[in-house]
Amino acid sequence: MTNASDLHARHAETLDRALTAIKERSYWSAYPENLKAYGDPERADSTQSAADGKAAFEGYLGEPFPLDQNGVDGEVSGEVSPYGLDLGVTYAHVDIDTTLRAAQAAIAPWRDAGPELRAGVALEILARINARSHEMAQAVMHTSGQAYAMAFQAGGPHAQDRALEAIAYAYAEMTRHAAEATWEKPQGKRPPQRMTKRFTVVPRGVALVIGCNTFPTWNSYPGLFASLVTGNAVVVKPHPRAVLPLAITVLIARDVLAEAGFSPDLVALMAEEDGEGLAKALALRPEIRLIDYTGSTAFGEWLEQHAHQAHVFTEKAGVNTVVVDSTDDYRGMLANLAFSLSLYSGQMCTTPQNLLVPRNGITADGEPKSVDVLGRDLASAVEGLLGDDARATALLGAIVNDGVAERLAAATSYGEVVLESRAVTHPDFPDARVRTPLIVRLDAADRDTYLQECFGPVAFLVTTDDTASSIALFRDTVREHGAITAAVYSTDEKVLDAAEEAALDAGVALSENLTETVYVNQSAAFSDFHATGANPAANSALTDAAYVAPRFRIVQSRRHLPAG
Amino acid sequence: MTNASDLHARHAETLDRALTAIKERSYWSAYPENLKAYGDPERADSTQSAADGKAAFEGYLGEPFPLDQNGVDGEVSGEVSPYGLDLGVTYAHVDIDTTLRAAQAAIAPWRDAGPELRAGVALEILARINARSHEMAQAVMHTSGQAYAMAFQAGGPHAQDRALEAIAYAYAEMTRHAAEATWEKPQGKRPPQRMTKRFTVVPRGVALVIGCNTFPTWNSYPGLFASLVTGNAVVVKPHPRAVLPLAITVLIARDVLAEAGFSPDLVALMAEEDGEGLAKALALRPEIRLIDYTGSTAFGEWLEQHAHQAHVFTEKAGVNTVVVDSTDDYRGMLANLAFSLSLYSGQMCTTPQNLLVPRNGITADGEPKSVDVLGRDLASAVEGLLGDDARATALLGAIVNDGVAERLAAATSYGEVVLESRAVTHPDFPDARVRTPLIVRLDAADRDTYLQECFGPVAFLVTTDDTASSIALFRDTVREHGAITAAVYSTDEKVLDAAEEAALDAGVALSENLTETVYVNQSAAFSDFHATGANPAANSALTDAAYVAPRFRIVQSRRHLPAG
Repeated sequence: MTNASDLHARHAETLDRALTAIKERSYWSAYPENLKAYGDPERADSTQSAADGKAAFEGYLGEPFPLDQNGVDGEVSGEVSPYGLDLGVTYAHVDIDTTLRAAQAAIAPWRDAGPELRAGVALEILARINARSHEMAQAVMHTSGQAYAMAFQAGGPHAQDRALEAIAYAYAEMTRHAAEATWEKPQGKRPPQRMTKRFTVVPRGVALVIGCNTFPTWNSYPGLFASLVTGNAVVVKPHPRAVLPLAITVLIARDVLAEAGFSPDLVALMAEEDGEGLAKALALRPEIRLIDYTGSTAFGEWLEQHAHQAHVFTEKAGVNTVVVDSTDDYRGMLANLAFSLSLYSGQMCTTPQNLLVPRNGITADGEPKSVDVLGRDLASAVEGLLGDDARATALLGAIVNDGVAERLAAATSYGEVVLESRAVTHPDFPDARVRTPLIVRLDAADRDTYLQECFGPVAFLVTTDDTASSIALFRDTVREHGAITAAVYSTDEKVLDAAEEAALDAGVALSENLTETVYVNQSAAFSDFHATGANPAANSALTDAAYVAPRFRIVQSRRHLPAG
Repeated sequence: MTNASDLHARHAETLDRALTAIKERSYWSAYPENLKAYGDPERADSTQSAADGKAAFEGYLGEPFPLDQNGVDGEVSGEVSPYGLDLGVTYAHVDIDTTLRAAQAAIAPWRDAGPELRAGVALEILARINARSHEMAQAVMHTSGQAYAMAFQAGGPHAQDRALEAIAYAYAEMTRHAAEATWEKPQGKRPPQRMTKRFTVVPRGVALVIGCNTFPTWNSYPGLFASLVTGNAVVVKPHPRAVLPLAITVLIARDVLAEAGFSPDLVALMAEEDGEGLAKALALRPEIRLIDYTGSTAFGEWLEQHAHQAHVFTEKAGVNTVVVDSTDDYRGMLANLAFSLSLYSGQMCTTPQNLLVPRNGITADGEPKSVDVLGRDLASAVEGLLGDDARATALLGAIVNDGVAERLAAATSYGEVVLESRAVTHPDFPDARVRTPLIVRLDAADRDTYLQECFGPVAFLVTTDDTASSIALFRDTVREHGAITAAVYSTDEKVLDAAEEAALDAGVALSENLTETVYVNQSAAFSDFHATGANPAANSALTDAAYVAPRFRIVQSRRHLPAG
């Protein structure tokens, strides 16, 4: 058994550094994103090599997943890799009553352990997840369809950084006031009133984390770790097609909790059959006091409107917009946009969808470019980026599910096709559906088409009257339909100012003139906020104070002290 | 016109001290509670004297209230003092559309002013309100029925301290990260990626504050000032019988805002006819993104369940409980409880209702006391405290409305009357309904009676099997019915520990062995949290991070910097 104090001491420096990072918001990362930093026999750490990770992943295939929870009333399976592989992992299906009862029963000692010890345990869980990043990469790749390097980075260290960021925020909020205070009120000539007071962080109860198909760890970790470290028990309900990454996460969490002397039932997995509707049933249970959800707008809104007993954090659909006015680095702009549209076949909540350009064209490197030319050049940039099949698949990954494939097929008829989507054959996985992005030209009048999220490898080049109209359309789009990201290209400071003002009004983060290797669809933990909570695409940001503070309450006691 | 920077500089020291106070949570107050500290001609400040405050109050009577808002579509009046006086003040009734449009239009410059300048303006508003505390005391007294000294303290400096506390929390959260950052990510042998980032606090939109009858300022100020200082516009919808204190508040706020160069429409009053249902209509408007409410459980729950577009903060009904086990200061305990039951005739959300005592009695000063004896002694303590009519009225104030009077009348039949409620004649206001508390003896079995809030001068002495049963009943009461306060009396550390554990489980603040001049129904700003948000009586605390952080969002922009 590991002493929880030892875990706190072991990770205190990491926590301290993270606390500095969330204040400064300059660059920092706790977990290396370089794949080669893991499993190097020359290094003293015990991180898994790529081969060991693959072996660990393959060990799960076709087997019951080794989680030891009570209340088993069936089993579920059915994960099929977007790369064609039938995973064949079976998961215990567990009873809601038993699971919630066990979760509730586990809370009091976890609450009493206090913020320091809980943070130590949470950081140890993260450290062990980090060491198994190659195993996690395989699990994320074969459930989300992300290419391996992306599955490693986004599903591994980047997700772990976001988890640490949430822990740091929660820790800062839990310890923002004294845990004990002496209160001494002067009473004129009489002796002062004196009291001693104790302020205890108490959790809300059981937290529910509802995972998504495309980013099973990245989107789930902040809520999971923020709820856990604030003293709550957490029930993880993974997407039926992306169970394995969260099952591994829960396995590691339960091991660490048990070793540290806490009940493993503080973190439970509730896998479901596709279509069972378990999230809905769980979300209305009185025991559930916190819900973190990433997914469709319809279910996100349902949660916001029905789960009154819980504080609900949602990330839903949005319509990400790029205002293109002018650039002094045309090649850089095209390359940057081409990459953003291609990464993971546009299956990111952060992928740009609508590129707004003036009908009369833009100015690039001092020269006018018509919309035709811009469209052609952008298409060429995408084709250049994805010309080689092996390189293309390493960027595109695979289409995650039929819904995306269907939307892509339908979108070809929406307007003039600027760039056709090409099917790419994956060198290692011939059954994978790999598709390059489709670009369709529309006009500002085609609102019914471009003002809804078309999730997947589909972008719209939308012509507007002028840049002022583009900015107005950008503002209205975000206000009414939401957005997780936005970008602007202009050489004119007045246009950039106007775009910034629109972004503030509409409540979306704005990337300006990205022409290098930072992309609008990527946000850096400890520096960039993911989503804002200020527009319809999400009711919260990852991660700020509003994301962590409602996960606990302060309960105080007070008693007199003898007059001093 | 006052420069907003000057206001910030003028109040920076107060803000700094408040920021320290909310961390340390030891004793501090910015606004003196001593009535004699105001209006002293020897002092250099320009605070109002009691006589000037009374004159100012009397100047409002029978006149249109001098607020200059647009969209006037009628007038409302009807405030009658619980002391018998018909106030006769008329207020403009304003149109929702016009008022919300004006509020929205006022936001952008207020947002752009930033946290420092907004805090300066908010603190100037508070300073001017503070200077007029005697005027406010009259307004609070003649709407709530509080006695003058209490109306002065709770409606004046204590409310102002709570407002300052909310401003300090909000300021701390708005400035917890850098407003700008340089992000520099190493790229191995290549030059680092370098970006500059800006993080802007943006408000949610228009905030709605719904005032209550009994504490029009104390319960409204934290939400009002927290929303305002985070950049929102605020619409104040006062209780139809307690408009004047908030009308004066809005008047001062609009003056200061206009003087500082902002739109006065950032703070608006929306008075309504009794029964008009304006709060309901406003609460569902899409412009309203924050709601602060104090009042009935029924309407609080309605808001929580229907105002999905807003973040809703509620304080509703609760059943405050005192566990009486034993004491080594019987006189002190009786005196303390007698005061708590009597203050403002029990018309506080913090007044104890259920006193749980073992059926076999308690131990006091080492001697057994039967429940009969305890009841008799408590009754005597109340009678002693309130024996003199002038002293009694200064403590009791007046019955605020018919609902309280009806509940008091009905409660006499609930069980054995331990202490009858006595009508007291007010020496200055013969028409005031002044009543001493009623104490009724019940048994633990009478759950239907004592497990609902009986708001007003009614307490129940409830017999239980033993102290362990009392603690169990305390835990269940708070969990199921909510509570704002709780207390325990015991000489046994094990009992105190068990009560603390129950208070943590149920989520309520616990006062232990109060025998001096701190009372369970009083909470000190900057030290005690009022309510917890952890039980059904309130979904938030005044004031913690969770109370302020959801009132704004962070919107960032980022652009490249040349490689360094």
